[in-house]
Amino acid sequence: MSVDDLPGFWAVVPAGGAGTRLWPLSRSGSPKFLHDLTGSGRTLLEQTHDRLAPIAGDRFLVVTGEAHRDAVRSQLVDLPEDAVLAEPSARDSMAAIGLAAAVLEARGAEVMGSFAADHVIREPEAFHRAVAAAVDAARDGWLVTIGIDPTFPSSAFGYIHQGEQLPGHPLVRRVVEFVEKPSVPVAEEYLATGRYRWNAGMFVVRPTVLLDLLAEQDADFAAALRRIAADPGLLPELWPDLPRIAIDHAIAEPAAAAGRVATVPGSFGWDDVGDFDSLATLLGQEESLVVLGGAEHVHHDGASGLVVPGSGRTVAVIGLDDVVVVDTPDALLVTTRARAQDVKRIVAALKDAGRADLT
Amino acid sequence: MSVDDLPGFWAVVPAGGAGTRLWPLSRSGSPKFLHDLTGSGRTLLEQTHDRLAPIAGDRFLVVTGEAHRDAVRSQLVDLPEDAVLAEPSARDSMAAIGLAAAVLEARGAEVMGSFAADHVIREPEAFHRAVAAAVDAARDGWLVTIGIDPTFPSSAFGYIHQGEQLPGHPLVRRVVEFVEKPSVPVAEEYLATGRYRWNAGMFVVRPTVLLDLLAEQDADFAAALRRIAADPGLLPELWPDLPRIAIDHAIAEPAAAAGRVATVPGSFGWDDVGDFDSLATLLGQEESLVVLGGAEHVHHDGASGLVVPGSGRTVAVIGLDDVVVVDTPDALLVTTRARAQDVKRIVAALKDAGRADLT
Repeated sequence: MSVDDLPGFWAVVPAGGAGTRLWPLSRSGSPKFLHDLTGSGRTLLEQTHDRLAPIAGDRFLVVTGEAHRDAVRSQLVDLPEDAVLAEPSARDSMAAIGLAAAVLEARGAEVMGSFAADHVIREPEAFHRAVAAAVDAARDGWLVTIGIDPTFPSSAFGYIHQGEQLPGHPLVRRVVEFVEKPSVPVAEEYLATGRYRWNAGMFVVRPTVLLDLLAEQDADFAAALRRIAADPGLLPELWPDLPRIAIDHAIAEPAAAAGRVATVPGSFGWDDVGDFDSLATLLGQEESLVVLGGAEHVHHDGASGLVVPGSGRTVAVIGLDDVVVVDTPDALLVTTRARAQDVKRIVAALKDAGRADLT
Repeated sequence: MSVDDLPGFWAVVPAGGAGTRLWPLSRSGSPKFLHDLTGSGRTLLEQTHDRLAPIAGDRFLVVTGEAHRDAVRSQLVDLPEDAVLAEPSARDSMAAIGLAAAVLEARGAEVMGSFAADHVIREPEAFHRAVAAAVDAARDGWLVTIGIDPTFPSSAFGYIHQGEQLPGHPLVRRVVEFVEKPSVPVAEEYLATGRYRWNAGMFVVRPTVLLDLLAEQDADFAAALRRIAADPGLLPELWPDLPRIAIDHAIAEPAAAAGRVATVPGSFGWDDVGDFDSLATLLGQEESLVVLGGAEHVHHDGASGLVVPGSGRTVAVIGLDDVVVVDTPDALLVTTRARAQDVKRIVAALKDAGRADLT
């Protein structure tokens, strides 16, 4: 697929979120998307750009925090100056993606697709085909989400309940509703029906449709975004008062209830690299010890799991199964794959202990 | 007990051995005895000196490697210049203790007691009473060892098989034989008899008796030691050719076979701090997480075992039982208490990999 196949299509990449479950690798000052978590030599942000470039070319917009603008620019050196929008402060996904929509509306973009900066996709061509189908439906005025084929009954993701096929769009289905993260037994029921898919937060839509959907829920919010797009000098004044709300709650759920959301089922080896357990799965095989970067620093004897030797020091691991060892210059994590979700509790405890410098 | 209670008694402390099972805390360049392993604020060597000072005063002699002389002197700053003997190279315990014996014989010492620099004793007064009884028997010409009350059927120590009480010395018994490290079932049989004690390598003897016992086995060895004592300038020339042999094999075992060894049963909270499992036992309780030094650096959640935060970095441990985490500026160890003995295999592997700098 080439950049000419999707004329007027712009890729939007909201690059935010600290990824606290990947501490101490990911920090608020150096979040997940800036790191090479797959050992590919490319960071997740770079991989995201690499993946979108074949279908978007230089029609590419990153929305990130002011604090990360320089890091983003240093990783994506070929982007033009106006390809990076910097948020003065974090205002959740509606403000970030809404700002991109307003800027693209002003630039005359026909369709935008928003994709997180810190996800992994192993089959980019299958992803491109899903995006193309979504763009096609979005041109008809739908808010289109890409629904990930669920490979196991995860309780870590929200689900998309899909309905009938959209007339004229053989690859697209109506969305009945979005459902919040379920329990594992409920997720098992979802999978048994064959009608539920993971919500990876991928939205494809006309910028104007997105802003109009927002205006129906919160006219002031949409108006403020359009004012900023028309006069970027208003950003510092208007931004702090924007609501902190996720795009799912702000527009996707109300629009689904109104029958205005569609979904493209996608199966392209997606992973959100949410914690060290999923990272270990992504990188290796059960019962082996996976090393992310600098394998020459690691010595082991009868151990399995994941080791990240991120400080250059020698790491020796003896006799632990499914262990997670993450070594950085100022902080060390030792846990198990089973407890990977609890890493965020240590991050919270560090903040409580006055060590926000480490988070 | 005071320094006047044991006139003519000298304490000898052989300070050698890298303690590879305590890697990466203990290194060949910075061995176990130079470290504070109990969180007391005093190193094991300093504690050994503290423990012996009440009965030996300044009648104190350390034998250590040339490479450690400065470190030893910096820890024991009040010692006179001639209280530290430096070995040009490691020649095992017979040469080290034999050199001390020859030097003390030349100085007119009546009795010497040799005690390792890296053991822990929780009840020093009980230890002093055992030494006093040993000194008393040593004045009568016996080679006297202190036999540690075995608290469990360890396979990590050699045992002393004790016999009848020594006439005139109510606290002292004859030694039937020394036995090598047994299997656990054999150790259980030993304990059931009540006649076996751990051999902690503590020998109390007249210097001349020790050298004469050595001369009976190896006249050249004893003669060389006496020549060095008479003329320290001969040390560089004679030392490299001295046999590498442990004092147990060189004189204790033959002397026991000849009925010339006695033992004082001792029970004073002894520990050789052989590995991180025994260190964890020494420092804490089961099912708790023990931190050696810098507890403010450690955050944990549902973990037990031992953490040594030795680099000043923050260490977070989540959900591991009986874990051992030892963090140093250039090397990190993660293992379990059950695998503590296998740490020496990693040290060997590092040497094989050309990383002797880390060992």
